[in-house]
Amino acid sequence: MIKVGVVGGTGYTGVELLRLLALHPQVRLQAVTSRGEAGTPVAELFPNLRGRVDLAFSEPDAGCLSECELVFFATPNGIAMKMAEPLLAAGVKLIDLAADFRLRDPELWQDWYGMEHACPGLLEEAVYGLPEVNRDAIAGARLVANPGCYPTAVQLGFLPLLDVVGADLSALIADCKSGVSGAGRKAAVGTLLAECSESFKAYGVPGHRHLPEIRQGLETYSGRKVGLTFVPHLTPMIRGIHATLYLRLDNADLDLQALFESRYRNEPFVDVLPAGSHPETRSVKGANHCRLAVHRAPASDTVVVLSVIDNLVKGAAGQAVQNMNIMFGLDETAGLQGIALLP
Amino acid sequence: MIKVGVVGGTGYTGVELLRLLALHPQVRLQAVTSRGEAGTPVAELFPNLRGRVDLAFSEPDAGCLSECELVFFATPNGIAMKMAEPLLAAGVKLIDLAADFRLRDPELWQDWYGMEHACPGLLEEAVYGLPEVNRDAIAGARLVANPGCYPTAVQLGFLPLLDVVGADLSALIADCKSGVSGAGRKAAVGTLLAECSESFKAYGVPGHRHLPEIRQGLETYSGRKVGLTFVPHLTPMIRGIHATLYLRLDNADLDLQALFESRYRNEPFVDVLPAGSHPETRSVKGANHCRLAVHRAPASDTVVVLSVIDNLVKGAAGQAVQNMNIMFGLDETAGLQGIALLP
Amino acid sequence: MIKVGVVGGTGYTGVELLRLLALHPQVRLQAVTSRGEAGTPVAELFPNLRGRVDLAFSEPDAGCLSECELVFFATPNGIAMKMAEPLLAAGVKLIDLAADFRLRDPELWQDWYGMEHACPGLLEEAVYGLPEVNRDAIAGARLVANPGCYPTAVQLGFLPLLDVVGADLSALIADCKSGVSGAGRKAAVGTLLAECSESFKAYGVPGHRHLPEIRQGLETYSGRKVGLTFVPHLTPMIRGIHATLYLRLDNADLDLQALFESRYRNEPFVDVLPAGSHPETRSVKGANHCRLAVHRAPASDTVVVLSVIDNLVKGAAGQAVQNMNIMFGLDETAGLQGIALLP
Amino acid sequence: MIKVGVVGGTGYTGVELLRLLALHPQVRLQAVTSRGEAGTPVAELFPNLRGRVDLAFSEPDAGCLSECELVFFATPNGIAMKMAEPLLAAGVKLIDLAADFRLRDPELWQDWYGMEHACPGLLEEAVYGLPEVNRDAIAGARLVANPGCYPTAVQLGFLPLLDVVGADLSALIADCKSGVSGAGRKAAVGTLLAECSESFKAYGVPGHRHLPEIRQGLETYSGRKVGLTFVPHLTPMIRGIHATLYLRLDNADLDLQALFESRYRNEPFVDVLPAGSHPETRSVKGANHCRLAVHRAPASDTVVVLSVIDNLVKGAAGQAVQNMNIMFGLDETAGLQGIALLP
Repeated sequence: MIKVGVVGGTGYTGVELLRLLALHPQVRLQAVTSRGEAGTPVAELFPNLRGRVDLAFSEPDAGCLSECELVFFATPNGIAMKMAEPLLAAGVKLIDLAADFRLRDPELWQDWYGMEHACPGLLEEAVYGLPEVNRDAIAGARLVANPGCYPTAVQLGFLPLLDVVGADLSALIADCKSGVSGAGRKAAVGTLLAECSESFKAYGVPGHRHLPEIRQGLETYSGRKVGLTFVPHLTPMIRGIHATLYLRLDNADLDLQALFESRYRNEPFVDVLPAGSHPETRSVKGANHCRLAVHRAPASDTVVVLSVIDNLVKGAAGQAVQNMNIMFGLDETAGLQGIALLP
Repeated sequence: MIKVGVVGGTGYTGVELLRLLALHPQVRLQAVTSRGEAGTPVAELFPNLRGRVDLAFSEPDAGCLSECELVFFATPNGIAMKMAEPLLAAGVKLIDLAADFRLRDPELWQDWYGMEHACPGLLEEAVYGLPEVNRDAIAGARLVANPGCYPTAVQLGFLPLLDVVGADLSALIADCKSGVSGAGRKAAVGTLLAECSESFKAYGVPGHRHLPEIRQGLETYSGRKVGLTFVPHLTPMIRGIHATLYLRLDNADLDLQALFESRYRNEPFVDVLPAGSHPETRSVKGANHCRLAVHRAPASDTVVVLSVIDNLVKGAAGQAVQNMNIMFGLDETAGLQGIALLP
Repeated sequence: MIKVGVVGGTGYTGVELLRLLALHPQVRLQAVTSRGEAGTPVAELFPNLRGRVDLAFSEPDAGCLSECELVFFATPNGIAMKMAEPLLAAGVKLIDLAADFRLRDPELWQDWYGMEHACPGLLEEAVYGLPEVNRDAIAGARLVANPGCYPTAVQLGFLPLLDVVGADLSALIADCKSGVSGAGRKAAVGTLLAECSESFKAYGVPGHRHLPEIRQGLETYSGRKVGLTFVPHLTPMIRGIHATLYLRLDNADLDLQALFESRYRNEPFVDVLPAGSHPETRSVKGANHCRLAVHRAPASDTVVVLSVIDNLVKGAAGQAVQNMNIMFGLDETAGLQGIALLP
Repeated sequence: MIKVGVVGGTGYTGVELLRLLALHPQVRLQAVTSRGEAGTPVAELFPNLRGRVDLAFSEPDAGCLSECELVFFATPNGIAMKMAEPLLAAGVKLIDLAADFRLRDPELWQDWYGMEHACPGLLEEAVYGLPEVNRDAIAGARLVANPGCYPTAVQLGFLPLLDVVGADLSALIADCKSGVSGAGRKAAVGTLLAECSESFKAYGVPGHRHLPEIRQGLETYSGRKVGLTFVPHLTPMIRGIHATLYLRLDNADLDLQALFESRYRNEPFVDVLPAGSHPETRSVKGANHCRLAVHRAPASDTVVVLSVIDNLVKGAAGQAVQNMNIMFGLDETAGLQGIALLP
């Protein structure tokens, strides 16, 4: 049993992480911290956990956390970077579900996140936790930066195409749609049901923090410069991301279906649908899968990739557990066998 | 008072048309026909119309319809083309909310709609009812082809850009999202609440009937060949279309905001939002407006246009009433002064 | 043209009131005040009003308001009672959409609203603005207390039964369901889409402020003591209230359908559906109607009344406009001719 | 491993049953039959099951089914009663998720279901599968009638009160609200998203088939005559039932909280919430729990019980698996450890 702590378990990635950890056969949950809710039983805030998580939230206390083998940060951006060094020094492994360690360049981070990085020295060591790209590095990591939700859906959709002959990487387009849980569990007018139900809108067109993360991932993987337009949208549902990806490809003979199937044949959590399919986000609701379909647009040289994930699972807590499994040498699918809830 | 008939008023465009006509100060509704519901009071099927529409559905009877000055077809594709000629011969003006007269090429029509066109001779006369492009022709028309919902949102968004220096028309992208009412009021598993609520998906990627309609519109307007990728998606809400449009533009100095504002300054139903805006579909729920915003993607030569309409109003029944107003010399906004319902 | 001011137009009853007033043929909107949003154009906060309401929010300024003939308070509870006296003294008529003047007993008010009443002397003068009960008094009123949303739906459903032989008024039950807009437009975790979509719950079972208001109304009308259990629920939609009402009736011969039809025959905004009907909240979405159906439960002496309204229209802003029309001698339906949006 | 067959796995109770069985450690799924979908891979219809259920639908073939140890019927009403006898004769145990064996009186069944019962002789043997009432009988049963969704929520809420001094059983009220999946996965206009989203309505007030089932259960348990008014409503969400129950109680001293906690102390799937709680349906989404709260209405002798279940789990497939576990001597919670998905 791995002794696990969770810092900041009061948001949606937090409660989803707790659900998955409570079901994980090799995890003992030691502490769930929250400054604001210290003393409150976890199951009082999240009644789905009644009878399954008996802990109360506790103060984030380095002493208690340093007795864990692994600590997840399900905190806002800027917290993990302040607490990482002493925990690592105490031999604790860390997985940050926020953005603190996702960008390798501290100046770029500061530009997008509006604060100075508290421990730039760790950025090089931190491993970007996308198992389909970095599995071996994750296995040996002390510090894993869990990818963002949009970046997971977008990168998994583009990866097979990046080194194909004829692919034009100068003007990729990622038109992405997210359920509202992506905005987090904080009081805000914009995500009230009465505001965002029965409506659809884009946001962040002038610039969204996931843009540099996606670009870094695609450029690192391909070794080439990538031009990317990324437009996120809010769709009136709780969970799910749908990425619709566009890439021009001057290569009419390439068997795209075979390319995708071959790339992901051995991946337990990436599912390439049969040719002609249109994945639905509900097919992954509550599950750690990414489901993909690849199309050629009619009468066009444009390739269209459709990629769906649950933003809270493969886009956050599930991928974090997958990374934990890899870091501790467990079966990569342990605790992640849940089947999407449909309908 | 214009004597008006509606053929096929049992669907969503039908009920919305009846709502608008019931509120229109210069319309007398003479007949609403439906083969399946003949005899049923309209307000029994649509309780929102109780006390406002006192007619019952009647059999589609050429005699009765030929006494109207104007007949709307809110029927499935393939009906209007069979009934148009005798009505026109009787001096009745026609507005078809279905697709029968939208494509000028009967072979193209047959390819996409899977049936032979019943009156190809009328295709040349029919006027494509997008007032922002064809206002004068509409004013003199006997037969108006009311545009599709996606084509309205997409064309209004692209129009200002088509003849700009540096616009690359070879690879336009229209990533569109529609509420479920776009699929119509027919019993079908795929549009049950339990199927499409809390989910998001693309559909029709291999080819959707609105693709040739949009391409025809853009090519006619620009006089140039247009390459277009069109991907529609189903979003879990009742009403609304959001089109996210992408075009590469090699013209860094162009003032896009001024371009759009200038193009639509005199249009009563096209609203260009301030620079930096993200229109919400709810801002047009029940109203005949198209609201637009134009952006340059960060660090890119891609222009992003955001265009929202209510698919049942500006995308169908409202635009049909607007066309009627133009055809009969009324104030173009008569009966279309409703304000979107928010929240 | 009546010169009208609105205090506190930033909430949902506020924006709905502005929508209705903008469409009203005999209203000139003079001022919309908001301390928090002073200076912001109204249409920036509520884009549905672009081109229709050109005012900006202003500071709540007695001078400006006292030039109005009528001021609506669309404020939180406790504001109108502090501003009412000087405005009344200046000859301005007032309609309070909040609860300040709904209960006649200032101690009862204090018990339920947790603050001392600021002008108990006005409570006797204030007229409870339910036109179906108090039309004549409203016509002569200076100060109207606009009823709560639940109280409107519940009272209209129970009224015809209260003085019937055999009705047991000792244990009425009102099981009510409201859309989320009833909770208002304020940042709160509990009404986030991700919290209350795809879920249903009761709230306030130990006591809700609308309980004494309903009881006062029923007792005043019947002149008898009324026992009432009131359970409100939150249902995952934006607008609409459905009240399901239960009353035991020892009178098997009474023609309930005729009773209801007779009671409401001349009411422009109360619609008794045919026997056997089940009204849907969407049939009044955006409209000022209450639709009712009355049933006898099978094998039981229990009468079941189903009553639906739009909580923001007949349950708030629409009823306020109806009261204005009565107070100023206008056609009671002026500006309230909108038809519910369906679907 | 128990060899299990499922007849009629194409509806919502079917897919939920398959999800649970695929996760069950002691089940081998032998056959899933469907006349309409024979030959189609199960995972093609239900993409959440990709990689988890490899069977295709097969013709309902007695030979194949009789090799199972247990067959579930997830069929429309009237199917199981025609297939039960030969399967029982072959030694197969049966759990019917439809209504064929729920009512003990064949005439009553015929009255409510509109067809003659095909095997009335089995009605006496069939055990009503509510474990909290009939656990021992279920353990010895060959044929279990799985309760309806509403009856489960209502009976579990009323049970502790039925034999209490002062309880008035002559006029119980069950005001129930169900998500739309309760209407099943069949093409129908009334359950389209565009029809029932953003709306709320009652249905079946003149009489619903679950009324006699609930009454039979309450009368059998209490040994007394029960008067019951049952009003079901459709609420715009996919899953979940909320029952709001009313009972007059002339017993002011009774500790209701203790009564409920005591009644359900040893029940693994009934969770009595702390005093003053309001259970949300989402707290059981995808889980086999019933969560209950009990209140006294203010200033009244009415007791209000709030009871929530997932209609597809504790209200159908999950309860069926619970019954299977009891029938086969397994841990009652085997395969039912899933935690509700929140948000």
